[in-house]
Amino acid sequence: MKRVRLTLEYDGTDFAGFQLQGKGERTVQGDLEAALLQITGTQIRVSGAGRTDAGVHALGQVAHFDVDWKISEEKIVGALNAHLPRDISVLQAGYAEQEFHARFSATSRTYRYAILNRPQPSALLTRYVWHVTRPLSVEAMQEAGRTLCGTHDFATFGQPSAPGLSTVRFVERIAVRPWKNGSCLLITVRGNAFLRQMVRSLVGTLVMVGQERLERGEVLKLLEVRDRRACPPIAPAKGLCLVKVGYDGQRIGIN
Amino acid sequence: MKRVRLTLEYDGTDFAGFQLQGKGERTVQGDLEAALLQITGTQIRVSGAGRTDAGVHALGQVAHFDVDWKISEEKIVGALNAHLPRDISVLQAGYAEQEFHARFSATSRTYRYAILNRPQPSALLTRYVWHVTRPLSVEAMQEAGRTLCGTHDFATFGQPSAPGLSTVRFVERIAVRPWKNGSCLLITVRGNAFLRQMVRSLVGTLVMVGQERLERGEVLKLLEVRDRRACPPIAPAKGLCLVKVGYDGQRIGIN
Repeated sequence: MKRVRLTLEYDGTDFAGFQLQGKGERTVQGDLEAALLQITGTQIRVSGAGRTDAGVHALGQVAHFDVDWKISEEKIVGALNAHLPRDISVLQAGYAEQEFHARFSATSRTYRYAILNRPQPSALLTRYVWHVTRPLSVEAMQEAGRTLCGTHDFATFGQPSAPGLSTVRFVERIAVRPWKNGSCLLITVRGNAFLRQMVRSLVGTLVMVGQERLERGEVLKLLEVRDRRACPPIAPAKGLCLVKVGYDGQRIGIN
Repeated sequence: MKRVRLTLEYDGTDFAGFQLQGKGERTVQGDLEAALLQITGTQIRVSGAGRTDAGVHALGQVAHFDVDWKISEEKIVGALNAHLPRDISVLQAGYAEQEFHARFSATSRTYRYAILNRPQPSALLTRYVWHVTRPLSVEAMQEAGRTLCGTHDFATFGQPSAPGLSTVRFVERIAVRPWKNGSCLLITVRGNAFLRQMVRSLVGTLVMVGQERLERGEVLKLLEVRDRRACPPIAPAKGLCLVKVGYDGQRIGIN
């Protein structure tokens, strides 16, 4: 058996997230396993680096599976894309070491959140942005982003995958920059790993700051209180995209 | 009655084009007239600058209609967007002079065509690009673009709106440039007006040149032969977007 590592792009709009739900709902993992069943005739389990929520997109999700293949890496890409629906694309495939694990070997994750910040909606961006009509201060959001960076207990901003697990995470970078001539904002968030709904909770908080409904001091208090119920409204899934999973760096903090 | 001018963005994927078909098919004009009926209680006719084909998108389509309103231009934008589906957005609205006509006053149209040029498909771009897997030479396409610019009889590259009408058009600019780190190409085509399927026919021809399946001399011959049947396969609708309609310049050539 050989371990295969995939880099995936998908449009999350019509998926109930990455991970198999077992409720007959459409998931990225389910569609990948169905494609592998068609190609190989056997049921193969696929593991992803992160379980993106329903509606969240990916430009660089990573997954792995084990298979008894001898075909070239290029042919794996072609075969999978030929059997996948149009809203999932395999960008890269490669044979990996047996120790490689898409989720547990990952040392960083980079997400990008897109906000349309103008009165009018955008027909061409509607599936990929959060439409915030009230003007946002990029500077105030950048400053609040710096406050949230570092190793913190992010219990206010997300749930662990099971009760009782650590809610400490390391956020390396939160960058806010104008996009599309200033009609949009892109927020890039990079860290070792994230709690459930953590990126969308951070973005929801930054938007409150950008609209002057929350001050920097209050953001610090949100961190300190460590209470999920204190979190501002979370940003909608459709603006979020998992852009990169890193495996090169040193593992930092608690995963 | 006052004449209102609109600038529109739409995702053409689920439309049978801009113009009303009268066959129960969904059109941009039909949805705009339905929104106006909901707002005003009367049937109002909408005219567009160009009838984009089924699947063609717009970032800057222009339309006009006559209405008995006193509300501000900003409120027109808000009212229409509140009654339009998510795949049509009104970007601007303004009261125009009675002589203004979205189609007949237009002096230029700018289209952009997007090509994904790599072996793998793209889940996030699939609705907006033509996926061409074989590598394209940007330089060869640029040179062929220059050959096609100018005032020519474009009978090989499109049909007039009714038989017997002129097929002479003025193409001011055809620019080909890399996009998204070279994985995509953007072709910008600007002219006074275009024949039916003309931009997609020009793009189909440029792609043949970019793949070295057609030489510059043969492109000249295609122009000279003035025979629609000689045209290379036309590019699919989904890569095309009407980005701007101009009203400022001098009218050039035959409309």
